[in-house]
Amino acid sequence: MTSPPKHLPAAPTGQHGLLNPAWAGTAAASMTSDAAVVAALLEVEAAWGEVLAEAELAPAQSADALRELSRDEAAHPDPAVLAEAATGGGNPVIPLLAELRRLLAERGISDAALHRGATSQDVLDTALMLVVRRVIDQVVTDLLRTGEALSRLADAHRETLAVARSLTQPAMPTVFGLRAAQWLEALTDAAESLHAAAGAAPLQWGGAVGTQAALVELAGSPARAEVLTARLAETLGLALPAMPWHTRRRPVLQAATAAAEALAALGTLASDVLTLQRPEIGELREPTAPGRGGSSAMPQKQNPVLSVLIRSAALAGPGHLATLHQAAGAAVDERPDGAWHAEWPALTELLRLTGGAAARAAELCEGLQVFPAAMRQNLDTAGPGVLGERLLARLGEAHPGGPAGLKALLAEAGHGDIDLTARLRQELPAETISDDELTETLDPHRYVGRSAQLIDAAQARFGELRAGLAP
Amino acid sequence: MTSPPKHLPAAPTGQHGLLNPAWAGTAAASMTSDAAVVAALLEVEAAWGEVLAEAELAPAQSADALRELSRDEAAHPDPAVLAEAATGGGNPVIPLLAELRRLLAERGISDAALHRGATSQDVLDTALMLVVRRVIDQVVTDLLRTGEALSRLADAHRETLAVARSLTQPAMPTVFGLRAAQWLEALTDAAESLHAAAGAAPLQWGGAVGTQAALVELAGSPARAEVLTARLAETLGLALPAMPWHTRRRPVLQAATAAAEALAALGTLASDVLTLQRPEIGELREPTAPGRGGSSAMPQKQNPVLSVLIRSAALAGPGHLATLHQAAGAAVDERPDGAWHAEWPALTELLRLTGGAAARAAELCEGLQVFPAAMRQNLDTAGPGVLGERLLARLGEAHPGGPAGLKALLAEAGHGDIDLTARLRQELPAETISDDELTETLDPHRYVGRSAQLIDAAQARFGELRAGLAP
Amino acid sequence: MTSPPKHLPAAPTGQHGLLNPAWAGTAAASMTSDAAVVAALLEVEAAWGEVLAEAELAPAQSADALRELSRDEAAHPDPAVLAEAATGGGNPVIPLLAELRRLLAERGISDAALHRGATSQDVLDTALMLVVRRVIDQVVTDLLRTGEALSRLADAHRETLAVARSLTQPAMPTVFGLRAAQWLEALTDAAESLHAAAGAAPLQWGGAVGTQAALVELAGSPARAEVLTARLAETLGLALPAMPWHTRRRPVLQAATAAAEALAALGTLASDVLTLQRPEIGELREPTAPGRGGSSAMPQKQNPVLSVLIRSAALAGPGHLATLHQAAGAAVDERPDGAWHAEWPALTELLRLTGGAAARAAELCEGLQVFPAAMRQNLDTAGPGVLGERLLARLGEAHPGGPAGLKALLAEAGHGDIDLTARLRQELPAETISDDELTETLDPHRYVGRSAQLIDAAQARFGELRAGLAP
Amino acid sequence: MTSPPKHLPAAPTGQHGLLNPAWAGTAAASMTSDAAVVAALLEVEAAWGEVLAEAELAPAQSADALRELSRDEAAHPDPAVLAEAATGGGNPVIPLLAELRRLLAERGISDAALHRGATSQDVLDTALMLVVRRVIDQVVTDLLRTGEALSRLADAHRETLAVARSLTQPAMPTVFGLRAAQWLEALTDAAESLHAAAGAAPLQWGGAVGTQAALVELAGSPARAEVLTARLAETLGLALPAMPWHTRRRPVLQAATAAAEALAALGTLASDVLTLQRPEIGELREPTAPGRGGSSAMPQKQNPVLSVLIRSAALAGPGHLATLHQAAGAAVDERPDGAWHAEWPALTELLRLTGGAAARAAELCEGLQVFPAAMRQNLDTAGPGVLGERLLARLGEAHPGGPAGLKALLAEAGHGDIDLTARLRQELPAETISDDELTETLDPHRYVGRSAQLIDAAQARFGELRAGLAP
Repeated sequence: MTSPPKHLPAAPTGQHGLLNPAWAGTAAASMTSDAAVVAALLEVEAAWGEVLAEAELAPAQSADALRELSRDEAAHPDPAVLAEAATGGGNPVIPLLAELRRLLAERGISDAALHRGATSQDVLDTALMLVVRRVIDQVVTDLLRTGEALSRLADAHRETLAVARSLTQPAMPTVFGLRAAQWLEALTDAAESLHAAAGAAPLQWGGAVGTQAALVELAGSPARAEVLTARLAETLGLALPAMPWHTRRRPVLQAATAAAEALAALGTLASDVLTLQRPEIGELREPTAPGRGGSSAMPQKQNPVLSVLIRSAALAGPGHLATLHQAAGAAVDERPDGAWHAEWPALTELLRLTGGAAARAAELCEGLQVFPAAMRQNLDTAGPGVLGERLLARLGEAHPGGPAGLKALLAEAGHGDIDLTARLRQELPAETISDDELTETLDPHRYVGRSAQLIDAAQARFGELRAGLAP
Repeated sequence: MTSPPKHLPAAPTGQHGLLNPAWAGTAAASMTSDAAVVAALLEVEAAWGEVLAEAELAPAQSADALRELSRDEAAHPDPAVLAEAATGGGNPVIPLLAELRRLLAERGISDAALHRGATSQDVLDTALMLVVRRVIDQVVTDLLRTGEALSRLADAHRETLAVARSLTQPAMPTVFGLRAAQWLEALTDAAESLHAAAGAAPLQWGGAVGTQAALVELAGSPARAEVLTARLAETLGLALPAMPWHTRRRPVLQAATAAAEALAALGTLASDVLTLQRPEIGELREPTAPGRGGSSAMPQKQNPVLSVLIRSAALAGPGHLATLHQAAGAAVDERPDGAWHAEWPALTELLRLTGGAAARAAELCEGLQVFPAAMRQNLDTAGPGVLGERLLARLGEAHPGGPAGLKALLAEAGHGDIDLTARLRQELPAETISDDELTETLDPHRYVGRSAQLIDAAQARFGELRAGLAP
Repeated sequence: MTSPPKHLPAAPTGQHGLLNPAWAGTAAASMTSDAAVVAALLEVEAAWGEVLAEAELAPAQSADALRELSRDEAAHPDPAVLAEAATGGGNPVIPLLAELRRLLAERGISDAALHRGATSQDVLDTALMLVVRRVIDQVVTDLLRTGEALSRLADAHRETLAVARSLTQPAMPTVFGLRAAQWLEALTDAAESLHAAAGAAPLQWGGAVGTQAALVELAGSPARAEVLTARLAETLGLALPAMPWHTRRRPVLQAATAAAEALAALGTLASDVLTLQRPEIGELREPTAPGRGGSSAMPQKQNPVLSVLIRSAALAGPGHLATLHQAAGAAVDERPDGAWHAEWPALTELLRLTGGAAARAAELCEGLQVFPAAMRQNLDTAGPGVLGERLLARLGEAHPGGPAGLKALLAEAGHGDIDLTARLRQELPAETISDDELTETLDPHRYVGRSAQLIDAAQARFGELRAGLAP
Repeated sequence: MTSPPKHLPAAPTGQHGLLNPAWAGTAAASMTSDAAVVAALLEVEAAWGEVLAEAELAPAQSADALRELSRDEAAHPDPAVLAEAATGGGNPVIPLLAELRRLLAERGISDAALHRGATSQDVLDTALMLVVRRVIDQVVTDLLRTGEALSRLADAHRETLAVARSLTQPAMPTVFGLRAAQWLEALTDAAESLHAAAGAAPLQWGGAVGTQAALVELAGSPARAEVLTARLAETLGLALPAMPWHTRRRPVLQAATAAAEALAALGTLASDVLTLQRPEIGELREPTAPGRGGSSAMPQKQNPVLSVLIRSAALAGPGHLATLHQAAGAAVDERPDGAWHAEWPALTELLRLTGGAAARAAELCEGLQVFPAAMRQNLDTAGPGVLGERLLARLGEAHPGGPAGLKALLAEAGHGDIDLTARLRQELPAETISDDELTETLDPHRYVGRSAQLIDAAQARFGELRAGLAP
C-alpha cells in the first residue's frame, strides 16, 4: 500500500465509517473501500494483459509484471493520491494508468500489455462489476445465515400463538412462526435476486465509444476481437454481454435493485423487531453482547442497536436507487456527461449498506430471543374479539339480533369493557351452540388457518435456495 | 357508470391529465383510471364469487349477480363517491362492499358470494396486479412497435457514419445504426423485465392477517383452501404465490422496477434525440403531425414534443420507485400502517408514465427522420483527430517524435487549427506509410470495429423477444 | 363546465382520489383539480387582459369578456378535452388559448386582450403559483387548528408524567405536554415556512425566452413593460420577482420544501400517535367518528385511520421533492426540455398530500384522547432505572462500589428482575442519603428538567405565529 | 492522530474520494472527513467543559485538559478505530467518550468536565452543525467567486447576441449576458439560502430525552440551565434554539435544502455549458489546465470535466435530500430508532457534493471562454424566423393573408428552405412597411426586451449579497 510520490493528504480527507455504523467494520466496507477498487481496477488490467499475452498480442513479460503488480497490494498506488489526481480527467483510471506506466518503467518493463484497446469506462465499469459480485456473495452468505436462523424460529414457533396486527391494532390470532416465515420468504426472494444479479454481472469492454474499433484493429478481425472479449470475461468470471453497455446501465440497475430489495426485506424485519421489543409489547429481544446497546447516560438501558442500524440502512437505500435510475435515464451519447460519474458512489454505498444490514441481520436473527408468554398475553389482552371474524361467520345468523346484533356486541367488546365470552353464552341459545363448541370457537389455536402449510412453504423455498447455492 | 346516491363532487376534484401530457390520452391512462380500478376490484370479487359457487360454497345466484354487476360498467359505483367514502376506512374496498351489498339487496339477491373469507387488502392488491398486467401488456406492445422501428433503423444505417461523442465531445467514428441498436437493446431488456413482471404478478389472498383462517373455515380444510386459492389465481390469470405477500411487497417492486427500467431506457433515447435534433447538430428530427410541436408565440418553431414528454416521464419515474422501496421497507406487522397506502398512487402513476412514454416512443421512432449527410458533416467537422486512437496505435512508433510526438500533434489538431492529414503526410516518412495506407488509416469507415456484429446481435435479441411474445 | 366540441373521454380516464385517501375529499383536492388549474390559467389571462385594457393597450371589451369567461365556471373548457389536446404542444395553455379564441369569436369579441406578449410558460407558472398560494393558505389554516389543539394538550399535560423513549426503549421521565409541545413547535416551524413560501410566490412573466421582448414592444419601453408587469403581480396578489424564473425554479422548490417540511412534521406526529395508540402501550387514541376506522372483516377493530393516512402522505412526499430538485437542476436553455413538464404533477401532488395530511391532522389533534393513567403505568413499569442518570450523578460516588458499582446495579435493574429501590436503600448508607432524600431522588416528577419552560416556549412561538397571521 | 490501542483497519476500509471526483481534493472533503468530525465532537465537549468550569460546576483543570486535547489533532483518537467501535452503541460519541476518559486518566486528570448532563445526540448533532457552518462558509466563498465571474460575464456580454432556445429549439434572440445573469441570480438565491441556514444552525442541547433534566440538576435551576445552554451556543457560535430538536429535524433539512438548492443552480449552469460547449454549437469552452480534461485513448480530445463533475454532483443531490426528509418524517419517540442515524451520511455527502460543485464552478466560470462569433452565427443560422413573434405582432394584420397568412409563411420558414426576408419584402406592400422599417424589424438587437435591465437587476442583487457578507 505504498508508492513513492505520496504527498499524502489521506488521513484528513478519509472516511472510515465513523458516521456509518450501519456498515462500519463489516466485510462490505473493506470490499468497497478505495483500496479495494484500486485492486479491482488492477485486476482488470492484469487479466486483459494476460489475455493479450496468451493471444501473443502483447509480450508475456509485460503481462506478467502487471499480474504481479496486481497481486502485490503493498505496491498498489495510494488511493488518496489517485483520488485527487482523478479529478483532472474525471475518473480514477487515468491517473492509475500513469502510475502503472511509471511503475513498469521503474522496473524497466514495457507497458505493451497495459490497457491496449481499452478505455477508462471499460476498466472502471468492469472493476465495479467485480466489486458487485464480491459484495453480493458476502451478502448472500449473510442472508443464508439469517435465513437459517429464521427457518429455525419458524419451525420452533409453529404453534406459538401471537396476536396479528393490522394498521397497528390487534386483528386476529396468528403464530409467531408464520411471522418468521414471512421474514424468511422475503430474504429468500432477495437472495435469489442478488444471486441472479451477481451471475449476470457482465464485462464491459467496448473501447472508447462502444465499437471495439481499437480491439478489432489489435486482434486483426471482429471475430477474433469477440474471442478475446469472451476470454477476458471468462478470466474475470463475469458474464459476456451481447453488446457493450456504456450507455445502457441495466447491469448497474440490476445489482442495485437486488440490493435495495434486500434492504427493504431487512427493513421490514428490523422495524418489526423494534416494535416487538418495546417493553410494553415485549415479544422479542435482540441478542446482547459486551459493548453493544449501551447508553453513556443511562446505564439501565439496553438498546436494540442491530435493528436500529438495519433500519437506518433501509431508510437510506431508496435514495441511492433513485439516483442510479436518474443516471441510467440520462446515459446519453457514447459516454454520459455526468450521469456515469454519479453512479459510482451511489452504487458502492448501496452495496455497503446492504452488506452492513445483512451482517447485522445475521447476528440479530441468530440470537433473537423470543418470549412466547408475552405473545400469548398480548393475544389474551386483545380479548376474544380477535375472533370476531370467526364468530360472525359461525354465529352471526344464530344471534338473536342476527349478524348486525353480533357485530354490535363485538364492537362493544372492541372498547374493552365487557366479558365477551359471558355475553355470547348469555345471548346465544344453547341449542345453537354448546358450551364445548363455544369454547372451541373461541380457541385461537383453532383459528390460525394455513399457517403450518405456509411455514412449510417458506422453509421449502429457502431450502431449495440454499441447496442451489451450495458449492 | 351511474348508481343512485350520487352527490357528485366529481368534476371539481377530478384529474384527467391536464398537467400530465406525458400520458394524457394514452391507453395507460384509461387502464389506471379510478373507474378502471373500480372495475378491477369488481372483477376480483366476481371471480371469487364464481370460485365459491363452483365449489358449492356460495349460491350461484349471488355469484352470477356479482359477475353481472362486474360486467355492466354502467352499473359500477361512481369512483368519485367511493373516493370520498374511502377515507373513512382508509381504503376503497370498504365503501365498495357497502355499495355492492346495497345493489344486491336492491335486486333482492343474497350477498353470500361476496368477499367471503377475504379482506380489503386481498381485493385491492389483487386488483392492482390485474391493472399492472394490463398496463404492462400495453407497454410491451408499444415497446415492440418501437423496437421494430429501431431495428429497421439499425439495419438501414449500418454504414451511416456518424461521430460518436463522449462527455459531449466528438470522440471517434461510429455508425448511426449502432446507436439505434443500443436503444433497441435497452428496450429489449426492458420488455423482457416487464414481461417477466407481468407473468409473475401474483394473486394476494391471505385473509385479514395472512393466515387464510376464514378461508380454511369456509373451505373446510387447509388443503381445500389452497385449491380454492389456486382456482382464483387461475380464473384471474395471475400467478399463485407460495405465501400471501401483504407485508412482502416484492410483486409491487418487481412491476415498478421493470417500469422504471423501461423509463430509463426511453429517457436515454429521448435525451439523445433531443440533442441530435438541435439544429446546430441536425442529425435527427421527430416526426411532425398536425397540431403537434407548435408554439403559440413562435409560429416558425417545431418542437420535439414527443421526446420532451418522454424525458419528463423519465425524470419523474425514480421518485415513485424510491417511494415504493421506502414503503416496502416499512411494511410492518400484518398490515402496514401507511406504507401500504403510499404504494397505490406511486405504482399507478409509474405505470401511467411508462405507458405514456412507451406510446410516445413508438410514434417517435416510427417516424424518426434521419439525416445521414448531417451526421457525416459533423464527423468531418470533428476532423481526422477522431482517428487519433488509431493513428497512435499504428503510427506512434513510426513518428519521428515517437508516440509523444504524435500525441502532441493530435492535441494540436484538437484545437482545430491545423490540417492534420497534411501534417501527418509531412512528418511521416513515405517508407513507413504509403499515401494509400495513410488514406485508408484516415478513413472512418475502416474504424467502426464490430459495429455490424453488434447491430446483428441487437436485432437477433429483439427478434427472439418478439418471437417469444408472439401469440 | 361545458363547451361545444366535447368528445368526452372524461370519466374513463379521470382520477378522483380513489387510491389517494390521504387527500380525497379535502379542500386541497379541489384546489388542485384540473378544473381548478383551468380556472387559474383563465384568471391569469383575464388579469393580464385587464392590465392591458387599463393601460389602453387592449380594448376593454375584449378584456371584459375574458374576465367574464374567467368568472363563469360553467363556461370553462372541459379539462379532460384540454388534457388530451395538450399533448400536441406539450402544455395545456396552447389548447386553452385556441378554445378561448373560439369562445370569443362565438361571442363576436376581439381576442386582442388575450395572451399578448405572453408565453405558455408565463401563464402556467403563474397559475401554479396561484394554486400554491391557495393550497398553502388552506394548509396554514389547518395547521393553526392543529396547533391550537396541541397547544391546549401541551398546557393540559404539563405535569402528566410519561416515559420518554429513545431507540424505542424507556429512557427517562418526561411529561406528555412536552411531547405535544415538540409536535407543536414542528408545526409552527412548518407554518412559518409555508407562509413565507406563499408570500414569496412570484409572478412569472418573461415572454417566450425571458427577455420580455414582446412586452417591451407592446408597452413601448422597458420601463413601461416593468410597470405593467408590476401591475399584473399586484392584480394577482403575487410577488414581483427581480427577473423571470423560467429556468431558475426556486419558487417551485421553496413551495415544495415548505410543503415537505410540513409533511415531515406531520409524519413524526402521526408515527408517534400510531405507536402510542398500540393497545399494549395505550397512551393515546384517535378520535372516532361514524364510518371511520372500521374494518369489513373485523368488527371489533377501531383503526387509527387518520394517523395511517397522514403517515402514508409523509412517506410519499420526499419522492416528489426529489423529482422537483432533479427538474430544477436540469432547467436548461431558455425553456427546459422536459424538466419543466415533470414539475407540474410533482408539485400539485405534493400540495395535495400536504393539504390532506394537514386536514386529517387537525381532526386528529382536536379529538385526540389522552390516557394519563396508561402513561403513568408505562413509566412505573419501566421502573426506577429510568432515573439511572440521576442516581449516578447524585449517588455514584457515595455507592460502596463507586459509580461502577452503581452502574452495575442499574444494569441489573435494566433486566427487570430486582427491586431497585430496596437494593439502593440497602446498599447506600443512611448518612449519605436519608429515606426522604432517596424517595425524592426516585420521584420522576422531580426529574423532568425544563419541561415547563420548554412548553411555554413552544406555546409562545405558536402564539406569535398565530397573531402574525391573524387577519 | 495517534492513540495507543490501535488495531488499525484504517487503510483497507477508507474512502478518500477515489469514486467521487466531484469533490475529491476540495476543502469540503477535508471539512467533512471522519477526522474533522472527530475534531468537531471534541470541540463541543471542550466548549461544554469550559462553560461548566467558568460556572464553577467543573474543575478548571479537567476543562483545560479537554480543550488541550481538542486542540492537539495529533492526539485525537483514530477515526477508523472509533468507527468500528461505534457500531456497538450505534454512534461514535460513546467510544469517543471512553477514549477521552482513558486519555484523561492517563494524564491523571479528572473527567469531571466531560459530557456532564449531555447525551450522545447533543454532541453529535451540535458537532454536525459546526461542520455544516464551516462547509457552508466555504461554499458561499466559492459561490461569491463564481458570482463575481458571472457578473463580469453578464456585463461584458450585455450586447452579445445569441439565440435563445426553448425545448432545445432556437426560439428568439437574447444576449449571452442575460443567460449569465440568470445563472448569477440562481447563485445569489442559493448563497442567501446557505447563509441563512448557516446563521440559523442551532446548538442541540437537550440531555437524554430533551428535558435537560440532568442539566437542571447540575445547574441548580431551570433558569441557570438555560443560561449555561446559551453560553455554550455563544461559545460555539451557534444559534440558540427555543427547544431541543432531537426529534424535530428542521435544522438538518434547512442546511440540506440550501445545499440542494445550490446544487440545482449549479446543475443548470453546468448542463448549459455542456450543451454550449458541444463543438457543433461552440458558444462556450471550459478553461483548460495542465492535466485536466485529457483522455487516455484519444489525445485530441478536451473534455469539459468541470461541468461533467458539477453535473454528476447535481444528479446525486436530490436522493440525499429525499433521504433526509424521510428521516425527518420518521423522527419518533424521544430519539428516533434509525432515522437519526440515516441522516449523518446523507447530510455530510450532500455537503461534500455542494462544496465540490461550488469549487469546480468557481474555476469553471473564472476561466470560461465565450465565443460571440459562434453565438451570432447560430442566431443567424436560425434565420429571421426567430423574429416571428415580432413579425406577427407588427405585420400580421398588414399581411395580405392576415395573421394566418403570415403564420403560414413563418411556419414554412421554420422548415428552413426559403428566404424569409425576401418573401416578406415581396408579400408586404411598401406603404405598410418601408425597407428601413423591415430591416429594423428584422434586427435582433432591437428585440432583446428588458435584457439590459434584467442584467442590472441580477448584478445589483449579487452586489447586495456580497456587501452583506463582507466581513
